[in-house]
Amino acid sequence: MTATALVGLIAGLLTSGAAIPQVLQTYRTKHARDLSMWQLILLTLGMVLWLIYGLSLNDLPLILANTFSIACYAALIAMKLTYARTDSAVSPSPPGRGLG
Amino acid sequence: MTATALVGLIAGLLTSGAAIPQVLQTYRTKHARDLSMWQLILLTLGMVLWLIYGLSLNDLPLILANTFSIACYAALIAMKLTYARTDSAVSPSPPGRGLG
Repeated sequence: MTATALVGLIAGLLTSGAAIPQVLQTYRTKHARDLSMWQLILLTLGMVLWLIYGLSLNDLPLILANTFSIACYAALIAMKLTYARTDSAVSPSPPGRGLG
Repeated sequence: MTATALVGLIAGLLTSGAAIPQVLQTYRTKHARDLSMWQLILLTLGMVLWLIYGLSLNDLPLILANTFSIACYAALIAMKLTYARTDSAVSPSPPGRGLG
């Protein structure tokens, strides 16, 4: 493996693995007030396209990394929706905040 | 441009652009309680490596997308540190929560 390929591999592990502490924190605290729903939606859509891209190139690292990340961000979206009621009781959204 | 390259391009725009609504929401609400600091740190480190990877391959899309994302996540880390005092007054961190 070249040094460049190794840098890319570590980069991919870091950016994919970064979702893990966020999923753990959100599950532990039961709060997702400060996570932008639009960020979660755009990331998930983008990663679904990365997955399609990886499948069409038959690129296993792209396929595995994006499948893992999609699962993490889908869990975060589900938790954000689940905790929305308690979160809004703690810190009410101003009118017109929308998806936030 | 092939259909596959187009899918990859849109995927990259979505995953890079996803940081924008998070930066805007965090700036507007002045709260970053529910953002995991470890996620922000791992993502930033990973994107610095992606940038190095892009520079060594002289790949302009990788270079531009990661420079933009690093700026967004650096801003989020700065805001999380800045808002930490007011955030902890609103919702105290339990002991041993650490970086969160």
